[in-house]
Amino acid sequence: MSGNSTGNMFRVTTFGSSHGMALGAVIDGCPAGLDLTRMDIQGELDRRRPGTSNITTSRGETDQVEVLSGIFQGKTDGTPIAAVVYNQDADPSAYEALKNKPRPGHGDYTWTAKYGVYDYRGGGRGSGRTTIGHVIGGAVAKKLLKHLNIKVVSHVTQIGKIKANHVAYSHVEEYSSENLVRCADPQAAVKMEEAILEAKAKGDSLGGIVETIAFQVPAGLGEPVFGKLDADLAQALMGIGSVKGVEVGFGFELAQSTASATNDEYYLEKDQIKTTTNTSGGIVGGISNGMPIVVRMAVKPTPSISLAQKTVDLERKEEVEIKIEGRHDPCICPRITTVAESAVAMLLADHLLRTGLVNPCHL
Amino acid sequence: MSGNSTGNMFRVTTFGSSHGMALGAVIDGCPAGLDLTRMDIQGELDRRRPGTSNITTSRGETDQVEVLSGIFQGKTDGTPIAAVVYNQDADPSAYEALKNKPRPGHGDYTWTAKYGVYDYRGGGRGSGRTTIGHVIGGAVAKKLLKHLNIKVVSHVTQIGKIKANHVAYSHVEEYSSENLVRCADPQAAVKMEEAILEAKAKGDSLGGIVETIAFQVPAGLGEPVFGKLDADLAQALMGIGSVKGVEVGFGFELAQSTASATNDEYYLEKDQIKTTTNTSGGIVGGISNGMPIVVRMAVKPTPSISLAQKTVDLERKEEVEIKIEGRHDPCICPRITTVAESAVAMLLADHLLRTGLVNPCHL
Amino acid sequence: MSGNSTGNMFRVTTFGSSHGMALGAVIDGCPAGLDLTRMDIQGELDRRRPGTSNITTSRGETDQVEVLSGIFQGKTDGTPIAAVVYNQDADPSAYEALKNKPRPGHGDYTWTAKYGVYDYRGGGRGSGRTTIGHVIGGAVAKKLLKHLNIKVVSHVTQIGKIKANHVAYSHVEEYSSENLVRCADPQAAVKMEEAILEAKAKGDSLGGIVETIAFQVPAGLGEPVFGKLDADLAQALMGIGSVKGVEVGFGFELAQSTASATNDEYYLEKDQIKTTTNTSGGIVGGISNGMPIVVRMAVKPTPSISLAQKTVDLERKEEVEIKIEGRHDPCICPRITTVAESAVAMLLADHLLRTGLVNPCHL
Amino acid sequence: MSGNSTGNMFRVTTFGSSHGMALGAVIDGCPAGLDLTRMDIQGELDRRRPGTSNITTSRGETDQVEVLSGIFQGKTDGTPIAAVVYNQDADPSAYEALKNKPRPGHGDYTWTAKYGVYDYRGGGRGSGRTTIGHVIGGAVAKKLLKHLNIKVVSHVTQIGKIKANHVAYSHVEEYSSENLVRCADPQAAVKMEEAILEAKAKGDSLGGIVETIAFQVPAGLGEPVFGKLDADLAQALMGIGSVKGVEVGFGFELAQSTASATNDEYYLEKDQIKTTTNTSGGIVGGISNGMPIVVRMAVKPTPSISLAQKTVDLERKEEVEIKIEGRHDPCICPRITTVAESAVAMLLADHLLRTGLVNPCHL
Repeated sequence: MSGNSTGNMFRVTTFGSSHGMALGAVIDGCPAGLDLTRMDIQGELDRRRPGTSNITTSRGETDQVEVLSGIFQGKTDGTPIAAVVYNQDADPSAYEALKNKPRPGHGDYTWTAKYGVYDYRGGGRGSGRTTIGHVIGGAVAKKLLKHLNIKVVSHVTQIGKIKANHVAYSHVEEYSSENLVRCADPQAAVKMEEAILEAKAKGDSLGGIVETIAFQVPAGLGEPVFGKLDADLAQALMGIGSVKGVEVGFGFELAQSTASATNDEYYLEKDQIKTTTNTSGGIVGGISNGMPIVVRMAVKPTPSISLAQKTVDLERKEEVEIKIEGRHDPCICPRITTVAESAVAMLLADHLLRTGLVNPCHL
Repeated sequence: MSGNSTGNMFRVTTFGSSHGMALGAVIDGCPAGLDLTRMDIQGELDRRRPGTSNITTSRGETDQVEVLSGIFQGKTDGTPIAAVVYNQDADPSAYEALKNKPRPGHGDYTWTAKYGVYDYRGGGRGSGRTTIGHVIGGAVAKKLLKHLNIKVVSHVTQIGKIKANHVAYSHVEEYSSENLVRCADPQAAVKMEEAILEAKAKGDSLGGIVETIAFQVPAGLGEPVFGKLDADLAQALMGIGSVKGVEVGFGFELAQSTASATNDEYYLEKDQIKTTTNTSGGIVGGISNGMPIVVRMAVKPTPSISLAQKTVDLERKEEVEIKIEGRHDPCICPRITTVAESAVAMLLADHLLRTGLVNPCHL
Repeated sequence: MSGNSTGNMFRVTTFGSSHGMALGAVIDGCPAGLDLTRMDIQGELDRRRPGTSNITTSRGETDQVEVLSGIFQGKTDGTPIAAVVYNQDADPSAYEALKNKPRPGHGDYTWTAKYGVYDYRGGGRGSGRTTIGHVIGGAVAKKLLKHLNIKVVSHVTQIGKIKANHVAYSHVEEYSSENLVRCADPQAAVKMEEAILEAKAKGDSLGGIVETIAFQVPAGLGEPVFGKLDADLAQALMGIGSVKGVEVGFGFELAQSTASATNDEYYLEKDQIKTTTNTSGGIVGGISNGMPIVVRMAVKPTPSISLAQKTVDLERKEEVEIKIEGRHDPCICPRITTVAESAVAMLLADHLLRTGLVNPCHL
Repeated sequence: MSGNSTGNMFRVTTFGSSHGMALGAVIDGCPAGLDLTRMDIQGELDRRRPGTSNITTSRGETDQVEVLSGIFQGKTDGTPIAAVVYNQDADPSAYEALKNKPRPGHGDYTWTAKYGVYDYRGGGRGSGRTTIGHVIGGAVAKKLLKHLNIKVVSHVTQIGKIKANHVAYSHVEEYSSENLVRCADPQAAVKMEEAILEAKAKGDSLGGIVETIAFQVPAGLGEPVFGKLDADLAQALMGIGSVKGVEVGFGFELAQSTASATNDEYYLEKDQIKTTTNTSGGIVGGISNGMPIVVRMAVKPTPSISLAQKTVDLERKEEVEIKIEGRHDPCICPRITTVAESAVAMLLADHLLRTGLVNPCHL
């Protein structure tokens, strides 16, 4: 019910807004005994940090995290881990002109319809900065997953009309870290960067596709009927701002296929049961089967653009035109990769605890 | 946590399996004072019932529902509504040969990995018959939505490689009810039926795409960060067996678009704020905006096929070949439309209650 | 939120009413692999069954349970266990006279205030018959606890002004099963029975105290801040109809004590840490310490009495006098013992799963 | 599940420990549009603050709160309210001697048994300082309740063997605020203070009873079976550290009564239905009836005392004797009154939202 928490046993509650005092998260349910330092969290925040290149927003935040609780003598102690990032470069001036004029594609109007009030400064809590909370939670989750040898990696497979060629999963992390757009196909990466800069120059923006892979996830995660692992993954990823589609394994391609062509057949590798193909993306009947988990999400173009757009002045009840002058990413895909990893990592941590594959009290 | 319940305030718990004694659902949280009869539920069950044509499984179940509680003098009384359907035509004989030999594309292996045991008769609780519970819950939810003038309609837009032409939303319900495949485009419907029969003749099966539209949903549904309405819809639909992809509004198409081309601009229609386009599928910033809600799901081909498939005998630890002889749908899309409607209806009922747009105690 | 479910991982949802078609429960979260038969549940239902002596209500129900799902080849299979008891001896005639005239001490008025409607026949879902659901859930929980050698026992320690002498915990189960009032002190039991019959003869009723002891509960159950084991026990017991007070260990006596007199000091018994006294009732800092868990609940006198009482006719808006002619227990304590055991057993099962002391998927 | 959160719709998550960097809370679900300032929270924190007299601990904390999010232009905006109190006077030196030697009556041993690790400095998160989180949540809840004219008041009715005389409810708040022990009976207050100082001088401590009254609570709060209002109150109060008993209305006294003597009869006051007595404490059938809600909790003597106590060295596995030298309250009752009010206020806010008596989105 609480719309700012996620997870059942590994439960993360986030707070804060784009132009308020601070953003942060409280992680409840991390088992005691996990090595954890401030730098584990800072490292992940640095990966999503803005202002680091000409294809991201120019807002200059260092996003330094302070850990308020939950670590005792270098390890988690079973109590909630609270962490805070104070806003440093908040500049609401650009947003005064947009007050009461909901930006197309943003939540301004729907938040106002729901709450009667809206912190219009930079989208308030609807801002992408809210994902700082996701990343804090994800950083702790990743540390827990690492303990079990599970790794979560995200990369960009499409930006606008530029599609990356398939790259072997084992190289995705390395190759995608070598360019600004986080695409594992270096040729496509160059074109993607060009496309982003071109859109930026026009005052426009681009969408794209991000793929997330989870390696070494054991079989058995996921509840069979209403908490299927793929259903929960869909919720986790569709819950990231700007995501409008999610598919698992071969996803929408399966719609035009036959079972004889796409059923994943089983074989034995030593004593282990594996599948010859992985059209299912590692999840069958809602439960993980031990193969890599593969999910993709469709990211819409950043709705904030400086081109003129039509909207309505909610106070004066008249149609108006706006141009959005704030600082924005012309394509959110590169930075959203870290958020996708965080969302998947939190979810896997939760399911591992629910399934008893990790002791909920201590490692 | 409980993997057999969905919803927070309109909470539905389902039980039962393909070849056990019965299946059913308990609905907790329906406000008192709603007119409800056994026939409201039976009518929806009849729409998903098997054995009604040559493109569905031949299992002959009448799926008669018995309501055990929750209705007093023709109206709900605020107490849980329990409803049961007894299995009549269970025939587990075809499944003995498949014991310990997980069927590709089915949950047999993953359930066994998770629980150590698996009711292999017809897929046990992993069977499509489990959606009887969804439909019971959905029937009550629909009755509640009707009270608010909200309608949920599903139709098939693609089967295998046959794609339907777009049909005006206002005609979808009527047109799609006029053919067995539940496709609103009558020409495509003919081809889809042929394609299904062709696949059936080969012992194969087909996937497809089902679109669900919710009309007259008020603005304001959805939690802003972790309970976004589109995220919850993605979970609800991806949680239906065989679904491997979900998209909202223009979905994956947005990935290759620009904001200038796809942002939904606002205008005034009398006093109401509307959008000129609906690429967002009625949900912006995770919250409904009053436009029709549009979601599509990718359905994989029914994994049960009579063609030979490779698998592993879990007991003997050896690779074997199986042919599945049970009764199955060569394409699950037509029947799954009712389940999709049910899943969306339950979710909307839950969010309406959470948002205070329906009084949780009584109408 | 769902007011008819309890537990997080061992989750029990109950349904049904006194004079409706049936009552029952769905248990979700019981691990697979537990030996379970219909008789395990029937045996517990028989212990709370009415109509078995002259100190209980004369309503003649055999309370035969039917198990609809969740057991496969004699064991739980990880899917929900649904069980139903059909009402046989429902006779609503006595209640017509009470329609719209809320009985003092009963929920008639408050239910009407909340839901606008009330199934007045025998208290509807507010009836003590609702505890059939508790006992079904408790029966499964007890079977799970037995697997871990944990036992839950309840006995009556006071009825009206008659107080039982203390009996060694090891004898409580045996001694209390030897009389109708379920009191472990045989002399007190005789007086209690007399007191009940005397109250019954006057058309009045009596309250009392029931103590529940859980043996062999391991240390470590309970969440430290908001899910303390004693807090959850208090909720579970106070949630049983007619209970108006709960205390753990020495409870209210501690209010008038000093720490020097009542702190439980630690000592070593072989390698195990124990306490010399058990004023804490086995729970310190909200977490079990391995000593027997001891809780007591105050049960108010059955509010249904045949003596004249003042109330208000809700329809006519006038003050009236009523006499309640239905069939009732003159003291609910003896039968409520089974319900208390059930409530505690369900809670312990839930906490054992949450703490990882039982594998949530399979035994 | 998350043991550091409470509430469903008005959900409060707390964090922090006695000697860590900070303590705080995140409140999720407070409707938008509520006037709220930092001082609303600070005022309540000041009421529970230590170091303010010779009957409280001498730890000198000013407990200044910082609000990080959730307030926009002087009102809540529907986003989570995060608030932090930094520890200033943490002095862990006194606790080094107690490391590995669990203090009788404290959670040291049970936390260690559960988590394998324990922040022994001042009890870590098991400390009474954790209730700073309760009070932050309670402060916001009280502000919301005030909007509905609901008031929650706590006072001390017993300390050790000194019992206060009954004082008319309408005077309780005023009278109890006039003395250090927060007892509404001034004569008893004097004796209570003496008794506390006497215990303190001996190095001992005292327990007591705190009563909480909620005025103007509307009828209809509480779920009928598993979320009864009295059950949830019992959980909320028993969940406060040191509480070992809870009773509602006449509580344990009802155990020795007859229904004819204690059933609350109904009468009409103008158009309103009231009860002539209030033995039920304002809750019947688990649902509020519009009368004042009255609950009492038994508080055990502060377990930290300087007298010698026996315990076990967990590392050396030997029996030892300890004296506790830290700074402690010789009786926690006076300060716990604010915590009790907070716990009840949070719970009522949650139930008001669940019942639809407050709009969950905005006022």
